[in-house]
Amino acid sequence: MLIKKLNDVKKEEVNMDGAAGALKQLVIGSADGAPAFSFRVFTVEPGGHTPRHSHPFEHLNYVLSGNGELVDPDGNGLPVTTGDFAIILPDELHQFRNNGNDDFVFICAVDKAYE
Amino acid sequence: MLIKKLNDVKKEEVNMDGAAGALKQLVIGSADGAPAFSFRVFTVEPGGHTPRHSHPFEHLNYVLSGNGELVDPDGNGLPVTTGDFAIILPDELHQFRNNGNDDFVFICAVDKAYE
Repeated sequence: MLIKKLNDVKKEEVNMDGAAGALKQLVIGSADGAPAFSFRVFTVEPGGHTPRHSHPFEHLNYVLSGNGELVDPDGNGLPVTTGDFAIILPDELHQFRNNGNDDFVFICAVDKAYE
Repeated sequence: MLIKKLNDVKKEEVNMDGAAGALKQLVIGSADGAPAFSFRVFTVEPGGHTPRHSHPFEHLNYVLSGNGELVDPDGNGLPVTTGDFAIILPDELHQFRNNGNDDFVFICAVDKAYE
């Protein structure tokens, strides 16, 4: 077993096409022995966003702090705030946007193959 | 996609042998279309605990609130507090205990077969 604190995990800029002002921390993943799925944390700065994309795997999310939007396949921004959970299904077009004034920070749990 | 709030999810007592003062909410699982793994939330009341057990699958955890102990295979209680992450590997003996005065609440992400 392993216990980790978020502040001890390196934060790296997300360099994917379509991302802006987004940082990633791989908190628990294959390097920690995770056999199947991993926990990452994304920090999206005010005005920032993750790519609007889809992929053949799901992710489960939990909002640690801030306010944002989860953009659905039709382009509607659904409000998500601290304490909310979400699931994005495989092949579902989606994007996280920060429309607040503070960092928008969330857990993104994903198959370790895509961590 | 689906967004869920914890307060909208039914809370049920954990009736497993060895559990005391522990409640479970299945926040995102197979009923929501989760293809591989699920997010549950456990609330352990002051003085309560989950079973001391092991199982052939891992779980990944995030502490939402409170203070507790994660008991390792040797019986040592490792402190875990709000904001901590943890992984319990397959077949690893473990237990969560609440030694604080407030509810100890954490996410437990697990293969959907064991949700």
